[in-house]
Amino acid sequence: MNAVLTPEKVRDGSKAGVAIAARAPAGIALVLLGTGVVGGAFLKLLNTPVAAALRLVGVANSRRQQTAVEALADRGLREQLKRQGDARDDVKLLNALDASDAAVKVIVDATASAELAARHAEWLARGYHVVTANKSLGGGELSGWRTLQEALAKGAHYGDAATVGAGLPVLSTLRRLRACGDGLLTLEGVFSGSLSYLFNQYDGSRPFSALLEEARQQGYTEPDPRSDLSGEDVARKLLILARNAGFALGTDEVEVESLVPESLRGLDTQAFLARADELDAPLAARHAEAATRGNVLRYLARLNQRGHARVGLVEVSPTHPAARLYGTDNQFALTTTRYHTQPLVIQGPGAGPEVTAQALLGDVLALG
Amino acid sequence: MNAVLTPEKVRDGSKAGVAIAARAPAGIALVLLGTGVVGGAFLKLLNTPVAAALRLVGVANSRRQQTAVEALADRGLREQLKRQGDARDDVKLLNALDASDAAVKVIVDATASAELAARHAEWLARGYHVVTANKSLGGGELSGWRTLQEALAKGAHYGDAATVGAGLPVLSTLRRLRACGDGLLTLEGVFSGSLSYLFNQYDGSRPFSALLEEARQQGYTEPDPRSDLSGEDVARKLLILARNAGFALGTDEVEVESLVPESLRGLDTQAFLARADELDAPLAARHAEAATRGNVLRYLARLNQRGHARVGLVEVSPTHPAARLYGTDNQFALTTTRYHTQPLVIQGPGAGPEVTAQALLGDVLALG
Repeated sequence: MNAVLTPEKVRDGSKAGVAIAARAPAGIALVLLGTGVVGGAFLKLLNTPVAAALRLVGVANSRRQQTAVEALADRGLREQLKRQGDARDDVKLLNALDASDAAVKVIVDATASAELAARHAEWLARGYHVVTANKSLGGGELSGWRTLQEALAKGAHYGDAATVGAGLPVLSTLRRLRACGDGLLTLEGVFSGSLSYLFNQYDGSRPFSALLEEARQQGYTEPDPRSDLSGEDVARKLLILARNAGFALGTDEVEVESLVPESLRGLDTQAFLARADELDAPLAARHAEAATRGNVLRYLARLNQRGHARVGLVEVSPTHPAARLYGTDNQFALTTTRYHTQPLVIQGPGAGPEVTAQALLGDVLALG
Repeated sequence: MNAVLTPEKVRDGSKAGVAIAARAPAGIALVLLGTGVVGGAFLKLLNTPVAAALRLVGVANSRRQQTAVEALADRGLREQLKRQGDARDDVKLLNALDASDAAVKVIVDATASAELAARHAEWLARGYHVVTANKSLGGGELSGWRTLQEALAKGAHYGDAATVGAGLPVLSTLRRLRACGDGLLTLEGVFSGSLSYLFNQYDGSRPFSALLEEARQQGYTEPDPRSDLSGEDVARKLLILARNAGFALGTDEVEVESLVPESLRGLDTQAFLARADELDAPLAARHAEAATRGNVLRYLARLNQRGHARVGLVEVSPTHPAARLYGTDNQFALTTTRYHTQPLVIQGPGAGPEVTAQALLGDVLALG
């Protein structure tokens, strides 16, 4: 019996799903974009009792889509979509939402497509809510962010918990503090599960490239680990946080230290992997230098009160919160005018299909 | 310029207060009960721009109250109330709320009065929202908790962020995970700022009673430190968390280890303080025993997946998250079906008038 948190029966005797339905008689209709690992995990959650009030009216992968009721009810939907379905066409998906009598209409973006993210603002402006794991709008060009804010002023909601820390309650906390007039002094942390793992492990006893290969084998890094090592993903998350803290920063206003040397950037994945040992000497030197001062290396993201944003390798003391992380944990430390003696710290698994899908579901349910 | 989080100007160009007013044209009217340190800090927040859409229509301390507009506008309100005002009378306070044309009517309880907490359910049933730092209902007798749940089924909101961790986003996270069908495996942490401080410091080099006196002088403990040492306050918070996780536990279902020996319980405060050195030998023995195993002592609260709840002194290894706390930090670690490799951890200052008042304000603003 570990399903303790499951609200199958809440205190007042009603089902959670029913309670949602009571608030919004026609329930919530949604369309899911993306059936990769996150989208797949989200589909599984839709088949649980807590999603009883949600009605899936359309699903799409990058090439095909499905809006037929009987097809959507099929548990093999994800597999089915690889072989059959209509050609991708947003209009038909939106029509499926419109055709529902739902009071709340949601588009869930579980892709990483910049092209799709560019449409979020338009959907919001037309009254659809958007719930997203896709960081390309919030963490992309400043013009896109501004368009998003204009669209939001019209009343639809943008559920973006899944874009930072896979739903760790960071964005919600930042917004709540801000709404209460608290003042940010610093925001600091480890925003990447793979970089967390690598530097939590790296103690100089084995070459960095050996550790990297191990992490890649275990699926902790992207297939091409340069996506992680470049710091670009961390920079994107820092941009989202900074913008939510009130700094309208452009993508060029985050200082990014890439761990990939110039000589390894232009290669294809195989060639990079074959030469990954070129990472070792520079990192070993930095590790040794830190060790002489009793310190350790961490890949940190930092924002200060003047809006200066940087992501990169930093030497920290063993008592620094980031020095005390395990596994692939993310960590977010907020020092504010009111949280000033010690920061407010949120940490835990910040990646993975299950928690990311849960963050999407949480944002959808909050619309009910 | 550290007021970065302050939403004086949000992206769409409107003031946050105005945005709230736009959603609820007649704004939010509120009555404040309690003008002690938390209530006083809350009154200060009401004088900031983020509270622009909030209308204070009544304030009360334990003996006097004030509902006259000109008196409420006085910045010396808290002091003024000690000398003048009407006699305490709930009816008149509720009438002041009713007389406002506000769409949202809120009673903010910043007291620790069990008598007032006993009225929360009635207020909710009558349609007033209640926002509270007072733990006496949520963490009191089970019958009170059940009455609260029945009252909430009628639609009013109970803002209780301030009752656990002074507003650290713990209850909201627990509820969100539960709404998504996540399953609690364990909930563990340090829920008391004073006990956190005492055991973060205690290394056997000085008598525990000397440390206690120091903590008392610095205002980290209650004037009578037995309120902290008894574990009763921690037990109350654990009850609130357990009930929100789905366990309808009674007050007698939390196992509480008091650090106050039987012989020191019946005394008045002065007599207790004079004999506080009787705490020293038993704690020194436990500390020494833990040290032989390389461990440290922490006063932990724990709930497991079968609903077993305990608060008390525990020996933990130096790598345990609670062994790595500083100052008066609280810590809440949630291990769930989906957060299972590593727990989701929230930590930071879990006491203090400013952050507690901010938690109250956050809950009030969320009603807009």
